[in-house]
Amino acid sequence: MDPDRGYPDALASDPLHLGWMQGSPPPPDKTIRHEDGSFLRFPQTRWSYSHMRQFGPTVAVPRGSAPVAVLPRDERGDLDTLPIVLGDARLVNWLESLALNYTDGIVVLHRGTIVYERYFGAGAQHRPHIAFSVTKSFVGTLAALLAHEQLLDTRAPVTHYVPELARSAYGDATVRQVMDMTVGVDCSEDYQDPKAGIWELLRAAGILPPVPGGAGPRTLCDYLVGVPKRGAHGEAFAYHTVNTEVLGWILRRVSGRPFAQLLSERIWQKLGAEHDAYMLIDRAGTELCGSGLAATLRDLARFGEALRLWGYFNGQQILPAAVVEDIRRGADAAHFARARIYSTSLPGASYRNMWWVTHNAHGAFSARGVHGQTIWIDPAAEMVVARFASHHLAANVDIDPTSLPCYEALARHLVRQGGT
Amino acid sequence: MDPDRGYPDALASDPLHLGWMQGSPPPPDKTIRHEDGSFLRFPQTRWSYSHMRQFGPTVAVPRGSAPVAVLPRDERGDLDTLPIVLGDARLVNWLESLALNYTDGIVVLHRGTIVYERYFGAGAQHRPHIAFSVTKSFVGTLAALLAHEQLLDTRAPVTHYVPELARSAYGDATVRQVMDMTVGVDCSEDYQDPKAGIWELLRAAGILPPVPGGAGPRTLCDYLVGVPKRGAHGEAFAYHTVNTEVLGWILRRVSGRPFAQLLSERIWQKLGAEHDAYMLIDRAGTELCGSGLAATLRDLARFGEALRLWGYFNGQQILPAAVVEDIRRGADAAHFARARIYSTSLPGASYRNMWWVTHNAHGAFSARGVHGQTIWIDPAAEMVVARFASHHLAANVDIDPTSLPCYEALARHLVRQGGT
Repeated sequence: MDPDRGYPDALASDPLHLGWMQGSPPPPDKTIRHEDGSFLRFPQTRWSYSHMRQFGPTVAVPRGSAPVAVLPRDERGDLDTLPIVLGDARLVNWLESLALNYTDGIVVLHRGTIVYERYFGAGAQHRPHIAFSVTKSFVGTLAALLAHEQLLDTRAPVTHYVPELARSAYGDATVRQVMDMTVGVDCSEDYQDPKAGIWELLRAAGILPPVPGGAGPRTLCDYLVGVPKRGAHGEAFAYHTVNTEVLGWILRRVSGRPFAQLLSERIWQKLGAEHDAYMLIDRAGTELCGSGLAATLRDLARFGEALRLWGYFNGQQILPAAVVEDIRRGADAAHFARARIYSTSLPGASYRNMWWVTHNAHGAFSARGVHGQTIWIDPAAEMVVARFASHHLAANVDIDPTSLPCYEALARHLVRQGGT
Repeated sequence: MDPDRGYPDALASDPLHLGWMQGSPPPPDKTIRHEDGSFLRFPQTRWSYSHMRQFGPTVAVPRGSAPVAVLPRDERGDLDTLPIVLGDARLVNWLESLALNYTDGIVVLHRGTIVYERYFGAGAQHRPHIAFSVTKSFVGTLAALLAHEQLLDTRAPVTHYVPELARSAYGDATVRQVMDMTVGVDCSEDYQDPKAGIWELLRAAGILPPVPGGAGPRTLCDYLVGVPKRGAHGEAFAYHTVNTEVLGWILRRVSGRPFAQLLSERIWQKLGAEHDAYMLIDRAGTELCGSGLAATLRDLARFGEALRLWGYFNGQQILPAAVVEDIRRGADAAHFARARIYSTSLPGASYRNMWWVTHNAHGAFSARGVHGQTIWIDPAAEMVVARFASHHLAANVDIDPTSLPCYEALARHLVRQGGT
């Protein structure tokens, strides 16, 4: 048990050890289901986050038929004992930090070479894991790409592309406000609050079962057209998953494609990905752009490496350098500071094109998803970390004290050590 | 419209032409859903059979990371005009026959080389299509393989492996009777009969929505333990999908693995498959072994080629020759003849290890799934045909008159033409 919180720790919650979904059929008390919501309940999540397609409808993000962009490998055994001072001043080593964070898998690239790769519990190198809001950074990157190609006007009103949103919070928002999450919208993401708007969004998306009686929106789009405004647009960063669902809708309209197809054509096929990814979809086939991507770690790492290298990866310019520059330059840190809750873990940061930009001395930027999903790119250290986890806590601000110091310590270590 | 039956023909039911699931979101009358059962309704099936993962939970059948077993290619344009006399004496050419059969895709191998490959409608070379009961031949093959390895005793009672089935029709059946479908069981497969047992099986499997009120079994295994006996065992071939669900349960017990993992380890990874396959699963994660495999056509063709070559494919003996011999030798044709309904299309045939063995002059044998799914292996012609379709008719006996003469005419043509 984690003495601080009453949750079993990583070892005690190991899904293989606990026997989840083992046996033919698994016994009732070891069966994880969609219909009773147990697939979203800790510690079942330690298994389900590596098997999300088994709980509902999904759509493939095909890798195509091009050769895999093989990542060179030079693993460094010394990393396990790297000392780290956590946010609460505890001293742990790197390997211990992985357990503290309920890590399901982690890949570290240094100068494009895999220097560390480990899987725990249900994690496996070939098995796509839910990336949750890491998905958003793919959506924001594609929006920035289509904007660069002048297919998308970021200054245009959202309703220019999706007139159906006229009576929602987005009726007077611009595309850029959506991309940088400065929209005033009433859809709370407080997972501790049973009345938070996120629950209605997740019911509409089919992730949670509908309320008895069947009231409420039945699809993502049905939900989006009615989401109410709250506060002003363009004044403060406010993290709302609903923004990314709206951005996904815009991208479908602009590209004339399902989002999964756009992601496959513009990114997945070009990365030389090892595996097809997939996305969770709602009852009408619409992808969950805010949280629905499942992929393997090495493929996330490939994407991170492409961003580190200004868009050039796998022998081609996958993204124009200007698009990556626009991400890495970040947005208005004053807007971000108004969100307050990140002042401890991400002081001085900003949010641009659905990326978290630290503005720290290393120029680090990150894709982040609940329960510990991460792509952490540290240009100064020439390092990319991709991590999946099934932490019992949802909010990354609660996980940051045991994870961000690890990435930063590792970056300093790699800088000190020099070349591979 | 097909003048004979009042259904739109292949061209008129082309799913791209009809606009199914196009738009963001697709308009309500062009949306295909699981919850209203429209994903199983013709002509929506012309789209949904190529997108089954979008309608419910699935599990991957990973191809692993070995290189693809590339199939050489030498396409023959002359095949399109090959004349064919259908079962009703109509004269058509090969290309016309594909439309008559609502073909979504077809691959023909001659001596291991792709001599013909076409996709129609929603079919695509990279997109897994539901194989329906072609799945059964994979299950039967794996059972024969484990029997050859003496891990499975085909003479043993089913209850030796699955004691939970003691009070079902399988309480006094042997494994061999299950493998060859000579079990007396009350689970009609008459898709025209709304009271047929197959509907309860499909509701239990989660394919069809539960009856209002929620009565009835909620998982495949819950259904299987209560399926009633009807008639005697071991006397006649009687085609019942429920047999394959039972055989899948036996294989999970024997191998200690989920069926999808067994299929991946013993077949998919060894074939050098191009794509991961997947399987439909029920609410408890149990694979639909009777109908749930979705795969790409070339990968089905690879499997067919391995069977044609007595188990040797991709540089290795994937299946012992004795296992393939046991399939191709077939079973008791007198048992088969008692089923009667196949007397026109498959006279003199038998059913062994869940393969249809024609005992014709070419030694042809086949895997068959409703609505026209096929692997047709003709050893004398050194030919393998893999075909996906979305015919408005379910039963293959109704489709055979427009499909079997085509395979046979093609086989004769290839024999006449000689080498590639």
